[in-house]
Amino acid sequence: MQKYSEPLSRLISELAKLPGIGTRSAQRLAFHILSLGDEEAFSLADSIVTAKKELKYCSVCGNFTDVDPCIICSNGARDQSVICVVGSPKDVVFFERMKEYKGLYHVLHGNIDIINGIGPEDINLKSLFVRLQKSDAVKEVIVATNPNIEGEATAMYLARAIKPTGIKVTRIASGVPIGGDLEYTDDATLIKAMEGRREI
Amino acid sequence: MQKYSEPLSRLISELAKLPGIGTRSAQRLAFHILSLGDEEAFSLADSIVTAKKELKYCSVCGNFTDVDPCIICSNGARDQSVICVVGSPKDVVFFERMKEYKGLYHVLHGNIDIINGIGPEDINLKSLFVRLQKSDAVKEVIVATNPNIEGEATAMYLARAIKPTGIKVTRIASGVPIGGDLEYTDDATLIKAMEGRREI
Repeated sequence: MQKYSEPLSRLISELAKLPGIGTRSAQRLAFHILSLGDEEAFSLADSIVTAKKELKYCSVCGNFTDVDPCIICSNGARDQSVICVVGSPKDVVFFERMKEYKGLYHVLHGNIDIINGIGPEDINLKSLFVRLQKSDAVKEVIVATNPNIEGEATAMYLARAIKPTGIKVTRIASGVPIGGDLEYTDDATLIKAMEGRREI
Repeated sequence: MQKYSEPLSRLISELAKLPGIGTRSAQRLAFHILSLGDEEAFSLADSIVTAKKELKYCSVCGNFTDVDPCIICSNGARDQSVICVVGSPKDVVFFERMKEYKGLYHVLHGNIDIINGIGPEDINLKSLFVRLQKSDAVKEVIVATNPNIEGEATAMYLARAIKPTGIKVTRIASGVPIGGDLEYTDDATLIKAMEGRREI
């Protein structure tokens, strides 16, 4: 005996694929969506399709954007002398929310992870080196990858690769708990971590 | 300074409208969706649109269905002598999951709520009376509305309206905590509540 009609069962299983959404949450969300007006439900679906279609990677920094270069890279008012290197597009959001950092970003879309076979060539590193070669403006690269093994490995790699060019490479201070995740760090800790950054 | 590009910002705000999804969860879900392949993301969006388009109310019991009558109402193997009246389509799921109840359902899509001006004519009650008039098969109506003020008011109304016809009207036993919600009740408690039902 089938518990749900097929479209409902499919909606629940699609929702349950999302991170942090278990079967019960997926059921609740599905019934909520069914209780919405057509317009609201279709708007939710359309926002997913539109985001996937319109958002591309910025050709300069690698962040998600609907214009290329992105609004941060093309903003002349930002400090062109410093690039903050992060592992994922959402990390940019966390730094922007803190409203203290005025420089540029570079999004790696991952970290070097030898155990899982992810080398420097598998993440968005080449375009960072191109940026550094193209412009004399950059004086400092702040490595703000997550403070875990992979993030540290990536930081070490960047330090070794960039330092010979004379550009300062710094690492955000511990302050962000080791083994933790930028996503769950409060703004005050993030500010501390930026202030206490040290050369590597 | 805009924090997100427009399509991303829209996706996050659409996701944040869902129940139990705060801004941070919505951000996490949005970035997850962007990290999916096109096919997976479009499949999620399509499951929402398809569910909204294909799911209608069963003309007999009022539950969501893609065929009319629904697979429960049209299943001759189910006990045609008993109808379990519930407030919402998701309540049907909770009873079906328990795998003990073999009768039919009737979904009210709400409860009588005098304070908020919801009367008997505002919920799916008329079609229940039509069912009871049409068929001699029904011997018992189990009122399984939530055990709160509105659910009890609905149960009382049903008892008064149906008892004169000679059909037995029962109420699921307290066992489901008063003031609670069927959604958060474990199966064992639900089974107890069904067993201990009493005439009202």
